[in-house]
This record gives sequence, structure tokens and C-alpha cells, in this order.
Amino acid sequence: MNNTRTLKKVIFIMGVSGCGKSTIGKLLSEGLKIPFFDGDDFHPESNVAKMSSGQALNDDDRQGWLETLNDLGKKQLTKDSCVIVCSALKQKYRDILSRNIQSETKWVHLSGSFEQIFERVNSRPNHFMPSELLKSQFDILENPEDALQIDISLTPEHIIKTIKQKLMNTSEFGLFGLGVMGKSLCRNLANNGFKISMFNRHVDGVEEDVAKNFKAEYSELSQAEAFDDISTFVNSLQQPRRIMLMVNAGKTIDYVIEDLLPHLSEKDILIDGGNSNYVKTKERCDYLKTKGIHFIGAGVSGGEEGALKGPSIMPSGDFEAYNNVKVFLEKISAKDQNGLPCCTYVGPEGSGHFIKMVHNGIEYVEMQLLAEVSTILENLGQNPDDIANTLENWKDTASSYLLEITTAIFRKKEGDDWLVNKILDKAGNKGTGNWTTIASAQLGVPSTLIASALFSRYISFYKEERIHLNKNFKTIISSEMNVTTNDVLEAYQFARIINHYQGFKLIAEASNKFSWNLNLSEISRIWTNGCIIRSTLMEDLVEVFKNTTNILTNPQLIDLVNQYKPSAKKVVSQCILNDITTPALGEAVQFFNGITTKYTSANIIQAQRDYFGAHTYQRLDDTSGKSHHTNWN
Amino acid sequence: MNNTRTLKKVIFIMGVSGCGKSTIGKLLSEGLKIPFFDGDDFHPESNVAKMSSGQALNDDDRQGWLETLNDLGKKQLTKDSCVIVCSALKQKYRDILSRNIQSETKWVHLSGSFEQIFERVNSRPNHFMPSELLKSQFDILENPEDALQIDISLTPEHIIKTIKQKLMNTSEFGLFGLGVMGKSLCRNLANNGFKISMFNRHVDGVEEDVAKNFKAEYSELSQAEAFDDISTFVNSLQQPRRIMLMVNAGKTIDYVIEDLLPHLSEKDILIDGGNSNYVKTKERCDYLKTKGIHFIGAGVSGGEEGALKGPSIMPSGDFEAYNNVKVFLEKISAKDQNGLPCCTYVGPEGSGHFIKMVHNGIEYVEMQLLAEVSTILENLGQNPDDIANTLENWKDTASSYLLEITTAIFRKKEGDDWLVNKILDKAGNKGTGNWTTIASAQLGVPSTLIASALFSRYISFYKEERIHLNKNFKTIISSEMNVTTNDVLEAYQFARIINHYQGFKLIAEASNKFSWNLNLSEISRIWTNGCIIRSTLMEDLVEVFKNTTNILTNPQLIDLVNQYKPSAKKVVSQCILNDITTPALGEAVQFFNGITTKYTSANIIQAQRDYFGAHTYQRLDDTSGKSHHTNWN
Repeated sequence: MNNTRTLKKVIFIMGVSGCGKSTIGKLLSEGLKIPFFDGDDFHPESNVAKMSSGQALNDDDRQGWLETLNDLGKKQLTKDSCVIVCSALKQKYRDILSRNIQSETKWVHLSGSFEQIFERVNSRPNHFMPSELLKSQFDILENPEDALQIDISLTPEHIIKTIKQKLMNTSEFGLFGLGVMGKSLCRNLANNGFKISMFNRHVDGVEEDVAKNFKAEYSELSQAEAFDDISTFVNSLQQPRRIMLMVNAGKTIDYVIEDLLPHLSEKDILIDGGNSNYVKTKERCDYLKTKGIHFIGAGVSGGEEGALKGPSIMPSGDFEAYNNVKVFLEKISAKDQNGLPCCTYVGPEGSGHFIKMVHNGIEYVEMQLLAEVSTILENLGQNPDDIANTLENWKDTASSYLLEITTAIFRKKEGDDWLVNKILDKAGNKGTGNWTTIASAQLGVPSTLIASALFSRYISFYKEERIHLNKNFKTIISSEMNVTTNDVLEAYQFARIINHYQGFKLIAEASNKFSWNLNLSEISRIWTNGCIIRSTLMEDLVEVFKNTTNILTNPQLIDLVNQYKPSAKKVVSQCILNDITTPALGEAVQFFNGITTKYTSANIIQAQRDYFGAHTYQRLDDTSGKSHHTNWN
Repeated sequence: MNNTRTLKKVIFIMGVSGCGKSTIGKLLSEGLKIPFFDGDDFHPESNVAKMSSGQALNDDDRQGWLETLNDLGKKQLTKDSCVIVCSALKQKYRDILSRNIQSETKWVHLSGSFEQIFERVNSRPNHFMPSELLKSQFDILENPEDALQIDISLTPEHIIKTIKQKLMNTSEFGLFGLGVMGKSLCRNLANNGFKISMFNRHVDGVEEDVAKNFKAEYSELSQAEAFDDISTFVNSLQQPRRIMLMVNAGKTIDYVIEDLLPHLSEKDILIDGGNSNYVKTKERCDYLKTKGIHFIGAGVSGGEEGALKGPSIMPSGDFEAYNNVKVFLEKISAKDQNGLPCCTYVGPEGSGHFIKMVHNGIEYVEMQLLAEVSTILENLGQNPDDIANTLENWKDTASSYLLEITTAIFRKKEGDDWLVNKILDKAGNKGTGNWTTIASAQLGVPSTLIASALFSRYISFYKEERIHLNKNFKTIISSEMNVTTNDVLEAYQFARIINHYQGFKLIAEASNKFSWNLNLSEISRIWTNGCIIRSTLMEDLVEVFKNTTNILTNPQLIDLVNQYKPSAKKVVSQCILNDITTPALGEAVQFFNGITTKYTSANIIQAQRDYFGAHTYQRLDDTSGKSHHTNWN
């Protein structure tokens, strides 16, 4: 058992008196080479005394005893699996026995008919059980739904074989879809000692034996099972099944769900680990609920490497189902600086995919800001190596994963030239930046930087038009760029604070609107490692969000903003005078001015709307909120 | 007839020989006091000769004669209605007779059984028609679907009364929903001589006798009919019915459609004149097609006053149905400087609502730019009267409806103070700016100014937060604003050109994507009057779009942009240094720099995406479009 590196388990053998629990329990313990405990040995003296005097135990008597057995299971799990024998006839007893170790607990129910058991018990020498006693046991028994049901008419050898096969030799976790991310997650799960099943579809000549070949490639996958047939894949999994889908977001998810459904059983759990739209995730939750299947939408960030070594994971949906997959997701996730998993239950419905979407929006902006500051540095005369050195120096105050990789990008050479100079300037996008902008527009939240970063990618896409228009317009630069690299750093830091303000504001507003009750501090915490936007600023925000949902009310950040703003103004105004395109830096300053302005020019907009459309307006001197209309002509 | 101010009509009385066409036609002409024409009097000599020689006419012989009658109808329509008698047994004859005057043509079919007509004809003195001849007439007859069917067994008096009632005394156009816009359109229709029916729902204590009271209020509505019962409203309309819905966009439209459907007949036409989402309009077109009902999505701009005196109308959908309502919509619309209606068939599906949405997006930006330049002028020390004077002076180069009303707004006083100073600075929005931003994000088009204007409204909405944050941050202004009012005008004009570039780019890209084949010149033409964004710039674009879909390739506009850009740079950089919030002006400069940049910084974004997500990139030195991937570590 120990050498098969599967998840540790507490196996409870349960059933009415005389069903053969002790016999089977001991044989199983020997077969699996794990400890055996008879629950009856753990009764407190008071219970023993009561039973000795011929009195039956009541539920109050049992409470402490069941808790002792639960503690025993927990303690054993820190070392190894174990077998515990206990009649556990009522669901509430079983709830106590498995408390906080639900996903590590396995139930084996030895079941037979009254006649079968009555005859078996009374055929043993020196044994006699009155039929009333056995009858009362059957009356009490609440059949467990999630137990492995074993027919006691089978031979002990057969029973042990069945239990071993069903409980120990089936996979604990299935991964559906072996793309870049799916493969990395499989290796991560296997490296963490989980027994997994891996599926990739078969497409003639295009995707053949993908799972099988992948398994052969990596030694850590030796215990993993590889499939290209859905039915055998699903049947290889323990129930309730846990299947993580790592396929393209969009319609594909729905097709995959329909393909899986006929093979699934009630209470099975599907986890969508792709970048699905949060609205769709809610729809899928609702749809699958009607089929008795749990659905968890889980944002996963970290790219290929993160998925392998520990991504940031943002699961949402049914909390009960989360508890059943928690041990897997938390184990494979990155760890924060306190060693806690960068994985937390985010909230209901599609909230996990919502925050993943915002994560990607923040990522778009961080990337765009680095592109803009690099352009400025280039205009200051720095070559890519110089730029890399400058960015390297910024690590002290502005450390982040994206800063780190951008530094490496500028260093990368191909022959005598820098590789970055050879890359076509047309940026791609895969939907989430787009969705963040759409969600902002729908929710009434001004996520101006995300829109700016998105539209910058769109502008880059019109390469042919840009080349054509470039010829039509003359550039007249009247002055030289008059900024230092430190000015640029401070402008960059200023914009990053605004970016994080906007991203978390969008989350906070969605949380209010949808009653998700999201914890911003926890969200920033699971983004401190494993994901693309990890940074020292993000680490700071974990504390900041313990006291506020608005980072511009935090004293330290207020000081920083006040310190950085003059540089931001200087850099942006100089860029404008020098025809250097810096929409996100520029918008950071504009937005900050807007959101800190007591009186905006929106009074003029309201007057215009009332003038041509009779839309009415409110007045500064009438706080009742009453609508006023003027005949302007 | 002349004094009832209804639409002029050509009434064709048709049917087989002997059905009584001439008798009824003459009586009707006398009753309505309009001219009578017997089609047989218009045969060319060749036809007369052929018939005299006992030969039957073939369809070639009839062609010229039918065209003559069609010309007769057209000529008469310029003066008055008329009655024309013609057997018109085949549909193709009727198609020629009503060519280009479909919506003004009315068919009355005098119908009876073979026996009925045979007996009637042969009972007249000195008349005899062989039964073969009458039989051949019945063989040829293709029953007209859209005709008023009259049973010839009724008395002539009864027939005339029925025709007058059904054709002349029912309404030509129905208007559903008497809000601000609906009421103005009713008065506009009535003022243009159309006989209309008006409907407004009854809601106890809230909306009671709305239509009736409205009719009583305006003398031009004396001929209009007022309803609060859907069935009688629908039955008051000529078929095919034309019903324009002026209700709130969104779910309400669907509810209204469901309420109307049971009362409608095939080929009836619904026109949605609200600000509906273009995607929904397509869905409704498709849905109603399954019910045999035509649906026209029509953007209507002009506000309350425009709707009354002549709005800009942007109808789309089924072209055949448009032809049936064209005369109404074109008549009530504004007229361009050449006297042509500011109403044109835009294109299929929801294209009319799409361009209305973009119209509103452009409007958002024009409003925002005026708010921003006013803020700058205020910072230059101008009071509202000064600002009004400045804007008034700009009319020479920057004339527009919005400039005009903004000038009036700044002049408006309330007691000793200017009214604009008393208006709360929280801007509302009703969906279309929001949708334009969403559509841009979905279509991959960088409509940065519309997003900027939308988000500025959103920022204004966080009034309490703005007041709170305002206290946290200090303002340090190092220099004085150093711009002239002419600089501001030029910056404003610069941004307006970029705004119109972006708006029409969004339309052009949607047209490509959805294969709508939209005519940008026609679209700008119908926006030169009646609508909120009418301006001299829009008038210029009518010509510009005859040669290009990209206004930044037009020589005059290139010159203007080159002329204005230095001022735009100066104004924006000065505003940034002086903490004056001008996001749209700023973004206009940033966007222009972006779209005219040969090499953007998107190569860095692509390198980052390839680094962390293996998203690959293309190379400048490989035009094959191949994807490249680098192992960056």
C-alpha cells in the first residue's frame, strides 16, 4: 500500500451486528498492510459499565465514543491508511465519524437480509442472538448512499478482493483533456501521490494515443491510467467521481459534458479548469444540478509551468462538492509565503471564473504597462540589454513575475540581434480581457485600464492599416524627452496601483451585485504565488484588504500614490509631447484624477441629456434625489 | 376625400368580366369625389384592332397597356387618389400595375361564383357572354391575397359603403406606446396627413385614457383614433397592418409582441422604433418570420423635438416590408440639405439598431468632449457666460447641434446664478453607450473614445467615493495652464475627427463581419439632420465616404488632423500637468498615435504571452504567418 503512493484513507467497515465486520476488517487490514481497529475497543468506561449491566446505549452515550473514533481516524491519516470497524447504523453517527475527513473516508457496508444474518450468527458455536435484537438493528439501519455495498453471501476472499479492487485500485481523480495545461496538472497530481486517470480523445491521424504516449513519457505517471475511451475512463474512477475538464472554453465544455453525462452517477463532481465565462459557469451549475451532478468552476492560473509546479486555483460552486475535491486542489496548488495553499473556496456559482477573468484583466494591464515603459526606455536611448538592466533594478520596489520574465525577454538574443526585435507587433487575445471589459460595462464599473490594454491589442492587430496611415501623417516633435528612468519607474508603480484598485473594485462590485460575499484578502492571498500576476504589491494587498475593500483608503498606499503622482504626470505629458503611445499610463492619471474629483463635468452631460431627451437631472441643492426638468429653450 | 387628409391611393377594382367593375367603380368615384378611369379605354390601337378582329390578347400585348395604367396611377397620385377598373386576373398583371406604388395601391376584388356571374350577365338586356368565355376567365384568375374581397351578391349601395369603410375609414398606421417619443411621432404622422391609430395601455390609477386625453390635447389629432384595447386598436388598421412600437427597449418589446400576436394577420408589419439591442432585433426578426409577421428594427434619433418635427430614422430588416412603410417613415423624417429624407433602408437584420447604437456612442463622445473642453475653459478663468460666448464663436468651424445646445445650457440662469452650477454631477446612461463598448470588445474594434465616455459617466456615478477620496490626496500644480481658447478648439476638433473615425470604423467592421453591405455615405447622410449628432463635420463625411471607408485617408481630413494635432498635444499635456480630467481628449491623442504607429509595443506582449503560456508569436521576417515558439528560460 505504502509504495503505491495513493491518497491515505480511513476505511470504515460497517453493518448490523453479526454481519462479519471484524472478520472482514482484519483480513482487509492484513491484505493492505495497514492498521486495524475495532471500534468497540474505544468505548469509555461508563459505556462499558452500562452495557455490562445490560442497558442499551443511547445517542448521548455514543457521542463521545464516535468522536474518539473520528480523532483516531484523523491521527492515523497523518501516518497511513487504516481500517476501523464500527456498526455506524445511522447517518448522524457516520457524519461524526467522518467529520473533517470526508474526502479521505471510505465506507464499506456488509449487507445481507435478516434471515441470512440470523442464520449465520446462530450457526456459530457458542453464539446466540435473539431475533428481537437483530430486528431492532435492522430498524435502526439507515442505508448509506455513498458506501461500497458488499453482499455477505460471498466468500471472505472474494469480499477482500472486491474491496481492494473497488476502493484501492481505482483512480481518485480524473483529468479530461491533455493539452499544455492538462498535461502539467496530471504530472502535478501524480507527483503529489494521487492515483489519477487521464483521458484524451482519439482523432484519427491528429490525436492518437495521446494519453498512452504521455504516460510513457514521464516516470511519475507510472501509476496513472491512460484512456481514449470515455466509458472506461469514467469507470476507472472511484465514486463519487472527480473529473477535471481541461478543454477549450466555450461550446466544447458543453459538448464534453453531454459526452460524459450518460456515464456519470449522482453526486459525481465535474471541475471546469478552463477559462470559461462566469455566466456560462452558472448556467452549467444549474443545468447539472438537475442531473444530480456537482459542477465546480475553477480558474487556474500559472501557465504551463505553474500548472506543473503549483498554480493558483480559484474554485467556486457547491461548497459540499468543493470539500470533496479540496484535498486534491489544495495539494497541487502553489503555496503562499506562509505555506498555505494558493487555492481557496471562492464563492458560489461562477465566482471563481469571474475572479479568474479579472485576474487576466489585471494581467493584460500589467503586460501593457511593461510594454509602454519599455517603449519609453527605448525612446530614452536604451537598447534591449539596457532595458533589461533597468527593469532588473526595479525589482527592489516593483518585483513581480511579469517584470521578471520581461527582463528575461529583453536579454534573449538570437544570433547578434535581440529576439524581441524580430517579433511581429500584432498581439493576440483569448477572450478573458474582452470579457472583463464587457463585464465592467455591464456592471457599471469603470475598468478603464483593462479596456485600454484590450484596445491596445486590437489596435496592434490593424498592422496593415497602421503602416498605411503612418505615411499620411507627419510627426513634429518640438522638444526632447525629459524624464529619468526613476520617473518612469514611479509612473509605472503609480499605474500599477490604479490597475489593482480597478481590478479589485470590479470584484467587489460583482460580489455585491450577485451576493457572492467574496473575501478580497483571500483572493489577493491566492494570487501571491503560482499565478501570472504574483508580485510584492499583491502580497501587500493581503493585509490591506483585511481592513478595507478600497485600496485608495489605505495610508501606506495613499503615501505611495502621492509620492508617485508627480512622476506619472511628468512622464505622461512628456510622452504626449513626444508622440510616444502610452494609453494605459495616460489613462491611469486620467482615471485617478476622475475618481478623486469632487465635482466632475457630469453636470454638463446631465444638462445636455435633459435638453434633448428630457431625461431629467438631480440638483446639488436638493438631496431628496428628486428628478428635475428644465425647458431650456 | 381631400378634406380627410389621408394618404393618396390608387384603387383598382378588379375581377372577371361581368362582375360589375365599371358600375361599382363609377359609384365609388362619385362617392369619394375622385377621378374614375376604365382600364379598357387605355389599350393601344394595335390591341383594339386585334380585339376587333376577334383575336384574344396575349401577355405581350398586355405588357405595354398595363404599364400605361401603372403610369396613370403614378401620375394621378401626384394630385389625388383615383379609381381604375381593370380585370387584372393574374398576379403578374397586378405586379406591373402596382410597380413602385405598392404601398399606395389598394385592390378591391369583386368576386362571385361562376353561376352567379353567368346569370347576372345574361339577364341584362342586349348582353350575352358565352359560358366558355366566362369559364376561361375563371381559369385564368389568380385570387389576390392582399385585396379587399367583395361579395357581388350585395347591393351596390352596400358594396360602396363597405369599400369606403374598409379602405378609406381605417387607419393607415398604428403607433403603440405614447411616451415622450411615441407622442411626438403621432403628431408628426398626423401633421403629415396620415390617418393613424394610437394605443397606450391602461394601468389603473397610473395610465388611464392616455391615448384619448392625448388626442383631445392636439387639434392635429382630430382624425386620429385613440385606444387602450389592443384588439380594437389592431382592428382599426388597414391590412397589411403597420404598427410602430415605441415602448421601452428590453423585455417589454417581447411582452408587447406576444400581446399583439393573437390579433395580427400574416404580412402585418411591426416596427420597433426603440433603442433595442441589435442582437435581439435579429432574434425577433427570425421569430416573427415563423409567424408570417414582418419585423423592422428602426433606430430613431432626435429626441422629443426631433420626433415631432422630423427625426433621423434608421430602419432595417426585410426590404419588401420596408417598401410598405417607406412612404410613412420618409415623410415624417427630417430632410437633408438637398431635401432628401433622413431615412434610408439601412440593411438586413438588426443593422438599423446597430447603427443607432453607434450613433449614440458617437453622441456620448461628443457630449463628453464638450464637457471636457468646458472644464478647461473654466480652468482658464471663464464663467458660464464666457464659456457660452467661446462655444458660440466655435460655430464657424465646429458647428453641431450638441455645440448649439451646450452654448444655450451655459447661458441658462436661475435667479442670479447659472443653472449648470446647480446640477448634480452624476451622469445617467440608458444602455446604448454600454452596448457600443460591448460590441466593440466583441468585434475586436478599438472604440476607445466611446469606452472612455462611458466610463467617465460611470466614474461620475461614484460621487460619494469621489468626495471621500478627494480628501486623501493632495494636489500639487507646478505650473499655470498655458493654452489659448483656439488651442482648445483645435484639440476639440482633433478629437471629434478621431471620434467619427472610430464610430464609422465600428460600423464598417460590423458590416463586414455580418455581411450587411452597409453604405457609410448614406448613413452619414441620414445623420446630417434630425438626429443628435448632426454637424457640419457629418455633412462633410457624406462626400468623404463616397471614396473611402477610412476617413483618415481623405486628403482634407489629413490636413486638418495635421493642423490640429500640435494643439491637441499641448492641451492634453497641459491638462495632465494641471490635474484637469480630460480622458477623451487624452485618449484621442493616444489612439491616433497608436493607429498611425508602424511598430507598436505589441511584440513585447507577444513575447510575454509566449513565455508564460506558450501562446506562440509570428515574426517580422517570416511573412508566411507561421507560429513560432521560444524556450525563453
